[in-house]
Amino acid sequence: MGYTVKELCEKVSGARFEAQRLSAEEKNRVLIDAAKRLEDNAEQLLAANAGDIKAAEEAGMSPGLIDRLRLSKERIEGMAEGLREVAALPDPVGEVLEEFTRPNGLRIRKVRVPFGVVGIIYESSPNVTADAFALCFKTGNACILKGGSDALASNRAIVAVLKEAITEAGFNGDMLGFVDSADRADAAELMKMRGLVDVLIPRGGAGLIRAVVEGSSIPVIETGTGNCHIFVDESADLEKAIPIIVNAKTQRVGVCNAVESLVVHKAVADRFLPMLDKAMKEHEVELRADSKAGAILTGAVPATEEDFGTEYLALILSVKVVEDIGEAIEHINKYHTSHSDAILTENKENAERFLRDIDSACVYVNASTRFTDGFEFGFGAEIGISTQKLHARGPMGLKELTSYKYLVEGDGQIRG
Amino acid sequence: MGYTVKELCEKVSGARFEAQRLSAEEKNRVLIDAAKRLEDNAEQLLAANAGDIKAAEEAGMSPGLIDRLRLSKERIEGMAEGLREVAALPDPVGEVLEEFTRPNGLRIRKVRVPFGVVGIIYESSPNVTADAFALCFKTGNACILKGGSDALASNRAIVAVLKEAITEAGFNGDMLGFVDSADRADAAELMKMRGLVDVLIPRGGAGLIRAVVEGSSIPVIETGTGNCHIFVDESADLEKAIPIIVNAKTQRVGVCNAVESLVVHKAVADRFLPMLDKAMKEHEVELRADSKAGAILTGAVPATEEDFGTEYLALILSVKVVEDIGEAIEHINKYHTSHSDAILTENKENAERFLRDIDSACVYVNASTRFTDGFEFGFGAEIGISTQKLHARGPMGLKELTSYKYLVEGDGQIRG
Repeated sequence: MGYTVKELCEKVSGARFEAQRLSAEEKNRVLIDAAKRLEDNAEQLLAANAGDIKAAEEAGMSPGLIDRLRLSKERIEGMAEGLREVAALPDPVGEVLEEFTRPNGLRIRKVRVPFGVVGIIYESSPNVTADAFALCFKTGNACILKGGSDALASNRAIVAVLKEAITEAGFNGDMLGFVDSADRADAAELMKMRGLVDVLIPRGGAGLIRAVVEGSSIPVIETGTGNCHIFVDESADLEKAIPIIVNAKTQRVGVCNAVESLVVHKAVADRFLPMLDKAMKEHEVELRADSKAGAILTGAVPATEEDFGTEYLALILSVKVVEDIGEAIEHINKYHTSHSDAILTENKENAERFLRDIDSACVYVNASTRFTDGFEFGFGAEIGISTQKLHARGPMGLKELTSYKYLVEGDGQIRG
Repeated sequence: MGYTVKELCEKVSGARFEAQRLSAEEKNRVLIDAAKRLEDNAEQLLAANAGDIKAAEEAGMSPGLIDRLRLSKERIEGMAEGLREVAALPDPVGEVLEEFTRPNGLRIRKVRVPFGVVGIIYESSPNVTADAFALCFKTGNACILKGGSDALASNRAIVAVLKEAITEAGFNGDMLGFVDSADRADAAELMKMRGLVDVLIPRGGAGLIRAVVEGSSIPVIETGTGNCHIFVDESADLEKAIPIIVNAKTQRVGVCNAVESLVVHKAVADRFLPMLDKAMKEHEVELRADSKAGAILTGAVPATEEDFGTEYLALILSVKVVEDIGEAIEHINKYHTSHSDAILTENKENAERFLRDIDSACVYVNASTRFTDGFEFGFGAEIGISTQKLHARGPMGLKELTSYKYLVEGDGQIRG
């Protein structure tokens, strides 16, 4: 890169105060201008991307991954539109979260502030570059982006355009840092920049997330992995259940909020499993069943213990029959990833018990797990879906990219 | 211990659902009973503590540390009183933080829930054992405590009493886990229990905190280190300034919210520094000054660069003279630990600039930094003071020991 990761982080950290002082109007102006510049520079971005695509093809990358890497005029327009949408959202910075006066007269305000420097480590989709920048910039954070090595040329070109929008507006381009390197050691180095980077967010598959969680000395927000379960209770409306399960499994495969495992109350197994069988065959979903479910389903593969703990990200669904809701809750809490789980039931008491006892970011009653998403929740943006409990849980929008501080005003108070 | 740390964590994790289902009334009953049991068993606790004290004396422990380790009837009553105070606080669990209905009819509630399992690693004060348990238990968290090895017998005795209060009430004693070991390897092992422990909070000195932050694979809330600064602006009321600085430096030495460094505007240096000199001499505070301050003060030690970055925790104060508020803010943001910093000024604009630009958990105008404290903020409790920006910042009370989850209720919604 011509400089070390540490030097890059120091530059970005040096620009963080300028970032946090930007007004909403200034930030929106840069974002809208950056959108136009992405569109205006589409040819240049496509040329850079063509180089990445060629190298990936020569390296024998799978068609699915190459598709993820590929830019097109439409995708660039999509990126630009994304920036405009973020510009249109309310600015969360400066919001007074609490305000109170103590008996000694001290006036205390708890105010929303940017983190400072946010690091984002992600995989091959180059559109994440513009998206991650927009969310960080809008929230007054300086950011450091480290994308996938396969997308290096594409990301470099996108960052150049974004930086131009910042500097042409008269602001410090160092608010956006880019690890211009395909070297894994540089990603590892970034994870050690505690003190210069306030929070690190990995966006990508389970392997990337594990590597960041285990390797980082910076506080990490863990996102992503979703081994989601649906429990079909004995009182479930079975006609309603099928479309929910079909939606949760097949509307989009390979996403973290897709269902991976079905838990069925024994009282409805005889009636429900044949309905499921038929629907899943229509949608070419492979079923992997425990012995009780397997005795009713036709042609299901026997499920192993490992199946229940697996996020397939494929047209596969594991099925288990349980004695009661208690066993269902215990089973789900044991095997899920605390992302999203649903109960299908017409029994209010069981719904409430499930909502209370399932230890997940999002717990559903009679709806598809696919709704766990910043846009579906109405946040207008999404930086990821947190599966940890510290700081943010579930879909993370703009607010989740902020911290707070206490402003305390007095007139000479001392502690007695 | 007769079992491994992992086995202990599994047991505690297994009890977490029972902890989170306890009602406010059930929790308060246990806490109040535990308080009485601590008082009733004072003799036994003092006997256990006497063993720890004897061993510490034989090992040549300093009188200050031995005092921290020592229990007395009064201190046991203080611990009991602490439990009663926590019982009297409102239960934060179950609070509906947000509630909204989406256009598709999904009803979404964001509800405050316990973390699950909280690990607390602390040093020699045995009273932390009761306090940490009370805060975790009140917030519906199971907890795992690892105290200082010097206090092992004292902590073991306290934990036995607390556990008795839980089990006598008919609840699962595994909600309270205790690493009954003086082996450092067991503390290191605890830090690796990601998946079984949701969050780890170190309570103690800078060394302990650094070790936990660096060694933990579990999300950590960093607490404690406070290199607090006070800036005396050119418009400061100098008569008001002296009592604030005296309070912040001397009211209690060795605490994280005590002031360690003074930054003085050059326009008031000639008038203010002699006043400071006199007051600090009266309170036996050693001054370490930069060259400009040193030329005015009498007998100050020359300050090195290292001085400005040092949390003395002693009757020492570094002093620097600056050109203007801009240099003051830059200096403070460079050397502080983002804990608590104050400006003394009668200029509203400067106060606002300082509040906005100082990157600390608590930023003060015209008051002592000593107020950064959960009790002084009116939280009724304090688990520590966070100096990081993820999850919680500044004084942490009961609410900061909780997470949230989303409860989503529908009637068959699927994603289009």
